[in-house]
Order: sequence, then structure tokens, then C-alpha cells
Amino acid sequence: MINKELIDNNNKTNIVILRIGHRPQRDKRVTTHVALTARAFGASGILINSKDPYIVKNIESVVERFGGPFFIRDNINAFEEIKKYKNMGWKICHLSMYGICYSSVINDIKKEKNIILIVGAEKVSGEYYNISDWNIGVGNQPHSEIAAIAIFLDRYFLPNTDRLVSKFNSPKLTIIPSNRGKFVKKIDI
Amino acid sequence: MINKELIDNNNKTNIVILRIGHRPQRDKRVTTHVALTARAFGASGILINSKDPYIVKNIESVVERFGGPFFIRDNINAFEEIKKYKNMGWKICHLSMYGICYSSVINDIKKEKNIILIVGAEKVSGEYYNISDWNIGVGNQPHSEIAAIAIFLDRYFLPNTDRLVSKFNSPKLTIIPSNRGKFVKKIDI
Repeated sequence: MINKELIDNNNKTNIVILRIGHRPQRDKRVTTHVALTARAFGASGILINSKDPYIVKNIESVVERFGGPFFIRDNINAFEEIKKYKNMGWKICHLSMYGICYSSVINDIKKEKNIILIVGAEKVSGEYYNISDWNIGVGNQPHSEIAAIAIFLDRYFLPNTDRLVSKFNSPKLTIIPSNRGKFVKKIDI
Repeated sequence: MINKELIDNNNKTNIVILRIGHRPQRDKRVTTHVALTARAFGASGILINSKDPYIVKNIESVVERFGGPFFIRDNINAFEEIKKYKNMGWKICHLSMYGICYSSVINDIKKEKNIILIVGAEKVSGEYYNISDWNIGVGNQPHSEIAAIAIFLDRYFLPNTDRLVSKFNSPKLTIIPSNRGKFVKKIDI
């Protein structure tokens, strides 16, 4: 499964979000925002620890309409998955308000091309802190894993800030930026 | 009420988030993330269009524990509020996936010190597009208003990126950044 995901993904870098502690009823909107932000800001895909066909369908629909590549896989064994990736040489980065400041390590992290980025929906157990190469905070204030992912990916990919508008393949829908109104270009395939 | 909010706020800039379309049951988690991200990234406060004592209590508790200033006010008449601020000379900025790219106008927006930043939870009606000085997109991909607020405020306040750790007054709790574990400094007052 991992190889298929990576073969499908033509990016030179692979940052895969690992969403742990997801509770389908309580977290469906926030985890959907996590996945959409991951895609929009340049991640390759997202793994979700629990089964949630609603989110999978929703994200796959966005990829079909607005372009890919971006994968989503639910119902994974999060800790086993981390060990698999780690054995392949990937680095593990955990976003947490308790971590060291992202700006102090982002240049080291940018040297790595294959990264699992862990974000928790609820309290994250100690084993994830221990297995991570970096526990980093986007600030040490309570805020949002969605904001943290956006800033982390933004800084990781700088100075390339064009991916938000141009990186997606085969979109059926493309927004035409405008200071008034809504302009959508539809491509029938 | 507006004057009180601004007198309470010692920032030289006042960016106030206006959350419209908030539905308490459906949006409570996402709007909480919106408010916490606004606070963490340097906004002065948040106005929410509908009544939601749960979120108000939650955010005021964060401000009490982690420091201020940051205000929250619910149950406002959003459009009337915008007109009041606009009459005082504030600029109105609406974040939307349909808008023009933030990077093309951020230097103009940075010249303004008093800004209402509108983010919608559901479809935003045309009157908000029309009354806004700028309709801007943080990319034109579907993602999250939380990510958009984070990137907008980050860019607005650059090169000052220290506010995430140092800007809050009178915190009872302060996180000590660490690459392992959780370290919290508690100050009894």
C-alpha cells in the first residue's frame, strides 16, 4: 500500500499527515479541514487512525474535482504505520504546542524529503513523542492543528509559494481569482 | 462596546475577526479553532454572528489561563457591525477561496492598522463581497478558514514572528518549549 501511494505521487517531496485520535462523530469537520489544508499546502496524503468513510469520500471527491495527486487512507494502525515508514528512512515530526519552535529547526527539516507529520485530535500518548525525530510547536499557545499544518507546510516549501494555485493535475474545476464575485472554470472530461 | 474593546487592546494594530454563518451545534469546534488561531496569531478579538455561550466561555477561559488581551463577543448583527466599523475608517477584508491572491495585496493591507477580517462558516452572501475592500484568497483551493487566517495574520505581521510565544500579558500558564515531553510553568496569582 505504501509503495502504491508513493508511486502514484510524483512530488519530489513526500510529506504525509498522520491524524491520530480521530473520533468520527466529534472530529469529522476538523479532520476534514486538516485533510484539505494538507492537500492545498502541498502534502502528498493523509492517514487517519480510525475508520471514517464519510471523510474518505469527501476528500476523494475534492481530489477528483480540484485535482491531485493526494491520497487518503483511513482505519490504519497508527503506531505500526510510523514504524514502517521509519524503517524506510522517513523522518517523523510531531506538531504539538509543547514542542520546540518550528523556526529553530525548519532548515534541518527541509533537508529531509520524506516526512510523516503527526497531528493529534485528542491527548497524544508519550510513545508518539518518543518515536518522533522532532516534536515541534508552531508557537506554544493553544490554537489549532489546522493552523499549525498550514504554517509548517508553508515554511517547508518556501520560497515556492505557488503550489496553492498551480500544483494540481487534471482539475475539473478551477477558481479564477477575483476581487468581486465567484468565477469558476469548469472543464468537462 | 466597540470603544471599550479597543481601549482594552493595547496593540498598535487591531485586526478583528468576524465569523459569519456560525451554527453552534455544527460549527462549535471549527469556530473554536478559528478563535484560538486568531488569538495566537495576533488578532485583537473575534465577533460571532450567533449566540454561543459555550464558545465564549471556552475562549475567555483560554485568555484567563494563557494571557491576553483578546476579546470575544457573540450574538452580533454582522452586517450592521461591519457598517459601524467601516464608518470609523476601518478596512474590510473577506477571506474566500474565490478572492484575489493574498500575496498580491498584502503590502497594501499592511498599511492599514484597523481591519475587520471576515470568515464564513457557510455560503457567504453577495453583500459581504460588495462591502469588502478586499476579497482575498489564501490560494484558490478548497481548504480551511483556520489555515487562511493563520497565513493571513502571519504575513500581515511579518517580519515580527515572535508574537506566538511572547505577546500575551499576565498568563497563568506558560509552555516551556521542549523536544521531548510536556513542560508547563504555572504562575499562581
